[in-house]
Amino acid sequence: MSIGIVSPQVMHFAEPLPLQSGAKLADYALTYETYGALNADKSNAVLVCHALNASHHVAGVYQDEPDNVGWWDNMVGPGKALDTDKFFVIGVNNLGSCFGSTGPMHTNPATGKPYGADFPVVTVEDWVNAQALLADQLGIRQFAAVMGGSLGGMQALAWSMMFPDRLRHCLVIASTPRLSAQNIAFNDVARQAILADPDFHGGDFYAHGVVPKNGLRVARMVGHITYLSDDDMAEKFGRDLRSGSYQFGFGIDFEIESYLRYQGDKFSTYFDANTYLLITKALDYFDPAEKFGGDLAQAFACTKAQFLLVSFTTDWRFSPERSREMVQALVKNRSRVSYAEIDAPHGHDAFLLDDSRYMKVVGEYYQRIWQEMPKPSATGEQA
Amino acid sequence: MSIGIVSPQVMHFAEPLPLQSGAKLADYALTYETYGALNADKSNAVLVCHALNASHHVAGVYQDEPDNVGWWDNMVGPGKALDTDKFFVIGVNNLGSCFGSTGPMHTNPATGKPYGADFPVVTVEDWVNAQALLADQLGIRQFAAVMGGSLGGMQALAWSMMFPDRLRHCLVIASTPRLSAQNIAFNDVARQAILADPDFHGGDFYAHGVVPKNGLRVARMVGHITYLSDDDMAEKFGRDLRSGSYQFGFGIDFEIESYLRYQGDKFSTYFDANTYLLITKALDYFDPAEKFGGDLAQAFACTKAQFLLVSFTTDWRFSPERSREMVQALVKNRSRVSYAEIDAPHGHDAFLLDDSRYMKVVGEYYQRIWQEMPKPSATGEQA
Repeated sequence: MSIGIVSPQVMHFAEPLPLQSGAKLADYALTYETYGALNADKSNAVLVCHALNASHHVAGVYQDEPDNVGWWDNMVGPGKALDTDKFFVIGVNNLGSCFGSTGPMHTNPATGKPYGADFPVVTVEDWVNAQALLADQLGIRQFAAVMGGSLGGMQALAWSMMFPDRLRHCLVIASTPRLSAQNIAFNDVARQAILADPDFHGGDFYAHGVVPKNGLRVARMVGHITYLSDDDMAEKFGRDLRSGSYQFGFGIDFEIESYLRYQGDKFSTYFDANTYLLITKALDYFDPAEKFGGDLAQAFACTKAQFLLVSFTTDWRFSPERSREMVQALVKNRSRVSYAEIDAPHGHDAFLLDDSRYMKVVGEYYQRIWQEMPKPSATGEQA
Repeated sequence: MSIGIVSPQVMHFAEPLPLQSGAKLADYALTYETYGALNADKSNAVLVCHALNASHHVAGVYQDEPDNVGWWDNMVGPGKALDTDKFFVIGVNNLGSCFGSTGPMHTNPATGKPYGADFPVVTVEDWVNAQALLADQLGIRQFAAVMGGSLGGMQALAWSMMFPDRLRHCLVIASTPRLSAQNIAFNDVARQAILADPDFHGGDFYAHGVVPKNGLRVARMVGHITYLSDDDMAEKFGRDLRSGSYQFGFGIDFEIESYLRYQGDKFSTYFDANTYLLITKALDYFDPAEKFGGDLAQAFACTKAQFLLVSFTTDWRFSPERSREMVQALVKNRSRVSYAEIDAPHGHDAFLLDDSRYMKVVGEYYQRIWQEMPKPSATGEQA
């Protein structure tokens, strides 16, 4: 069952947010949604962190947009793996996004004009700091769990290291403790395509009334290839021709071209180019083991959460090997960690898709979280 | 030992070349080089076919360009795997290229202006037909071997099927009988980057005195990622920073970014954008098994050559699996086929690099070709 109709909320913050870069973000707001009810002792809150192309809109639909279904609606809802009959779930849009929270298209209070290229580069750690301030405002001292897939998984990892006392469980799906050179390379191709688009205008395209569509389109096309598995692409598209024969030109011959160009075109109509640049940089920069000489076990040494990690066999963007590296580091630290490697054909995208084994693993893990929840004392005292 | 100083030659063809698209290419020329000496019965000729970013300049250097070393100089030369003391080696530039043979920047006799976007789309089979006409002119009825890597390997394969009597051996290195959907997808990203560059001017950028540098740069960057293995990139670049710390901007942070942008910049100074589009289409279209319902053994059934196939374990562009598929089809046909899978870390690029096991396999195969060469009759009669 879907959670039904939901509404985003906005929290303003007057105190400037110090960023990892040394800059400060003044006068910012976070857009978020909540599903389910916070219990009396505020112990059933779960924070869901989003990846590149997503937002606070995790589940449900909007009153006036019945087709705008949350990106993890198959995971979050009444009776679902993350059961909103039991848990109070928060989805929060990250800073720099183009979906609600303060981002490059918003007014820079210092200039009165849109931030554009002046929006500060933000990191996963900056996002987590902002999420923690939101949790403060909502009166949530400790999350039952922080959960995310891909870039969202990086945020869950950062939570476990930055605020060890503020989460009991950390769920990290299809993620990695750091990007590889190849991951960074693909991100840079996307950035160069955007930066080279004459309609980008150095990031200030808002003032010109244009959008760097061509750059965004190429960026999305190359990104999309890395989300799908080679086999899945072969299965879905193979060498199928759009019109049955070669066209001997540079239009569309193959179905895969048609599909990717469509995805790129669609993306370019709704995604902000500055946001794309910012989010790929946040991905590139995340590397919590770096200050420990690459020793992930040392980076995790401060964590107190219990972990669930899930990876997917055909994910070549963040392969199971990356999750296994994290599992090994956690085991070395004698942390409590569960790990599932799901044999799924859909590549990186699998973390967003329905798969009964995947949902079962996550659902049973949340069952355990629920069973281990601190129960209100017999005297009925509550905070 | 290197072959030393070499000189390109040009062969003009007055008779129009009928193309697979139905178009005809009138008044064209092929640029080629030869190394070693053709024996009296013309039985020691080897044709070397080039891949995307290469040409007829297979080995040696030019008198006035001592640093311009042929792209397979490590393979072809006196005493090398393809020994020019024994074999007469021909490198030929393909139609549509920007390195000598008739291509988009040459004058279209129909208009008196550069072809640009009007240069016809050419296929691997078209190239092979043109190569066969060159062989006719050189008086070579049958090659001792036709050899190529990657896209060059496709041409060798096409030779074995189109002209079964005109080659005794077919050497196919790091190649594939067809592109996968993922391969096509990467090619289309590159094409879209070029087509979207305002300096492309619909292919007629010559008249505008500009070059679509940004598009070519992105095209090369994405291509280059697919030539290297993930592991090799990790080994060479990892997450090394250009200046020791994050820059919190969109310049260069990581060495891999610096490397790829440099490769892209360099490529955009010498490679023609129309040629890039044409060559990626030739790659996409090659699929000799298609007319046999995908049955590669049937496609190969007409071949008479003996085969050597070589693949490299970390090549994820044209993985060993693709070569194994060809080997199995040849074995099914009871063709004579040798196959080596080289455990090399360098991805697809390995076919261009020195590796003693790789060179040994190819060198010993050519030794066998040499030993099996038809010997002049005892009476000294020669053609």
